[in-house]
Amino acid sequence: MPEFLELLTPDVAIDKFLQYLKDVNLKVEKNKTQNCLNRVLAKNIVSKDDIPAFTRSTVDGFAVRSKDTFGSSDVMPAFFEIIGEIKMGKPANFQLSTGQACLIHTGGMLPDEADSVVMVEHTQYSNSGEIEVYKAISSGENVILKGEDIQQGDQVLTSGTLIRASEIGALMALGITEIDIYELPRIGIISTGDEVITPDEFPDLGQVRDINSYSLSAIVEKLGGIPRTYPIVKDEREQLMDMLKKAFNENDLLIVTAGSSASVRDLTADVINELGTPGVLVHGINVRPGKPTILAFANGKPIIGLPGNPVSAFVIAHLILGKIMHVLRGEIKQFSYQSFKALTTINVASVAGREDWVPVKLLDIEKDGMKLVEPIFYKSNLIFSLLTAIGLARIEPDVTGLEAFSEVEVFII
Amino acid sequence: MPEFLELLTPDVAIDKFLQYLKDVNLKVEKNKTQNCLNRVLAKNIVSKDDIPAFTRSTVDGFAVRSKDTFGSSDVMPAFFEIIGEIKMGKPANFQLSTGQACLIHTGGMLPDEADSVVMVEHTQYSNSGEIEVYKAISSGENVILKGEDIQQGDQVLTSGTLIRASEIGALMALGITEIDIYELPRIGIISTGDEVITPDEFPDLGQVRDINSYSLSAIVEKLGGIPRTYPIVKDEREQLMDMLKKAFNENDLLIVTAGSSASVRDLTADVINELGTPGVLVHGINVRPGKPTILAFANGKPIIGLPGNPVSAFVIAHLILGKIMHVLRGEIKQFSYQSFKALTTINVASVAGREDWVPVKLLDIEKDGMKLVEPIFYKSNLIFSLLTAIGLARIEPDVTGLEAFSEVEVFII
Repeated sequence: MPEFLELLTPDVAIDKFLQYLKDVNLKVEKNKTQNCLNRVLAKNIVSKDDIPAFTRSTVDGFAVRSKDTFGSSDVMPAFFEIIGEIKMGKPANFQLSTGQACLIHTGGMLPDEADSVVMVEHTQYSNSGEIEVYKAISSGENVILKGEDIQQGDQVLTSGTLIRASEIGALMALGITEIDIYELPRIGIISTGDEVITPDEFPDLGQVRDINSYSLSAIVEKLGGIPRTYPIVKDEREQLMDMLKKAFNENDLLIVTAGSSASVRDLTADVINELGTPGVLVHGINVRPGKPTILAFANGKPIIGLPGNPVSAFVIAHLILGKIMHVLRGEIKQFSYQSFKALTTINVASVAGREDWVPVKLLDIEKDGMKLVEPIFYKSNLIFSLLTAIGLARIEPDVTGLEAFSEVEVFII
Repeated sequence: MPEFLELLTPDVAIDKFLQYLKDVNLKVEKNKTQNCLNRVLAKNIVSKDDIPAFTRSTVDGFAVRSKDTFGSSDVMPAFFEIIGEIKMGKPANFQLSTGQACLIHTGGMLPDEADSVVMVEHTQYSNSGEIEVYKAISSGENVILKGEDIQQGDQVLTSGTLIRASEIGALMALGITEIDIYELPRIGIISTGDEVITPDEFPDLGQVRDINSYSLSAIVEKLGGIPRTYPIVKDEREQLMDMLKKAFNENDLLIVTAGSSASVRDLTADVINELGTPGVLVHGINVRPGKPTILAFANGKPIIGLPGNPVSAFVIAHLILGKIMHVLRGEIKQFSYQSFKALTTINVASVAGREDWVPVKLLDIEKDGMKLVEPIFYKSNLIFSLLTAIGLARIEPDVTGLEAFSEVEVFII
């Protein structure tokens, strides 16, 4: 297996791969803002309005000219004539003169002549139509000025921003009900193998059901892409080539899970190389599981060859796919894994130079304020080992295993 | 404001509320397994098959009877006659006798007579049709036995389990292509306020655009529910009652954002009380922002009254909605917020007994291996304060503020 002579660590392999992704061309579409949760903005957003659009009260109380409250206190209240109430959603229909106040609710628009609001707690009704104010307030107190948050012409959001609930809210506040977003990347997924059948078939002796098409589709969906599966391909050059070409042309990224034997892996690499240049960049990564991973580019489009073993494919997809899809989705913020730090309950063996990923179960107890995780070992490394796992613990390439109660980073699955 | 005389802390208020949610009836639907990412299983899954269904090789090599390798070593190899190759996806079409071996690939089915596989690395071709084996192996080495992972009748998944990529993979491995899942909870969302207009309208003086319908919908969507918005309701008793009744009947949970003034909050509480018993359970929580929150139940169905201020509504939705929707979705695992620990860069003031939630920005630098976050203060507490925030830092009720470089938990938004 000459391809494994010089194995790169995952970080180095992925960096090498991502270099080629820099110049990728992203397509843009328009969509209603309210449908854009978890999409990525493709254009800067500049406000056409001042927000707030008018000076508003931030409390329930009485709008006044602040200078009229000067010197007032608990023992020496100031008196104001109440001349009306500000209706919500309407400007004042009166003018406020010196010594006058009007009732105002939170969010209400201040009359032009008022510059502040006395909270209702600091007032008391006295004679009919009059209040006593027990506190001197300053100009601007309990109000938010027109344009204080956002001014017309301010850049509010940058192209490449992930749209969350808060971004949707802000866009609505600005009256921006349609936006330019990047198209979701389409990810073609092909399972291969003479022994592989679809899950609804009953396996004959020697056959196994296709897992990878579905678990990888789910990972792609979770990461915000559109998964597109293709029929299972036999380990046969011409058939593999036809299907890979078709899926390669129809998608922004192609994932092929190859059989585990060396000859089948070589066949997959050969066919990938024929799709375009530069072809295979990385063939084999110093990681377990997932060593026989292929990273390739053909004419500007990325291709990933994953091992056929479902856990290996799952681990490498989590390790690589997030970063790649982040770029293909147009996100500018640095990609970050969803992870947490924890202590392992038992020793975990590893080999220096190789990065290991071990499924772990979260325990209900903590130790020294740290979460505890228990590594899960299944003999065959089948997908069932992941069912009770909260995530995958990473054992860095430069260590030769972990002792019990060492700290590990757990990547949530 | 008598309702605020005895304010509960958020944890106590939510626990009180969740008590009533225990007996909620969840509806079940059938769906294709491949469409069930992020859904919740409504029935235990028992395997009808042994997995693997046949004894398989876990390496590329030669299937043998292990006792034939007894005593073999680098200096004293054992010789085997090669009688064929196991094709992927097929059983052997020959019988293996003593002293015989056959080529087998990873995942290939062992011949009945073999009990182990010698890795190709420990063999060498000698005369034509023969190999030398340089290592003694034990029974079961490099194979995974029929039924070793899962046996027919094993319970593989429990009702109430969240379906992730790994669960989809496991179900496919078992040939279970359709499953029973809980229906997604439908969450009715109503914005109220005389001053509130739809985002596509241009506000007159005193009016503001509806933010809450959209930011809350996005939060519901993120938490795995179906948001359903209704037309904006004016602060008028009959109109409010009609719309609340309609939305209450059409959904599994109703969220109403009320205006911020005391009279409008009281109106909302009154109308909620008329929807059924026991009515309002909590009216006001000791939290900032979000104090005027209402938690209610009417005839077994939950209702939440949120403050009209978009940041207050946003914070309380993050604080409460996750836990409620977790129950309405049928999940059995304890709900856990998506959060991380960090240090604040500056002092944050708070009041003992009150829980504070402060938007924070993640900085690029770390201190002592901890992430650093910078609190964001906006005067008006408008939605824009959340745009640069990674999350909300919680300041526990029992502290009177945080000094710079104190540890906080940040809840990701």
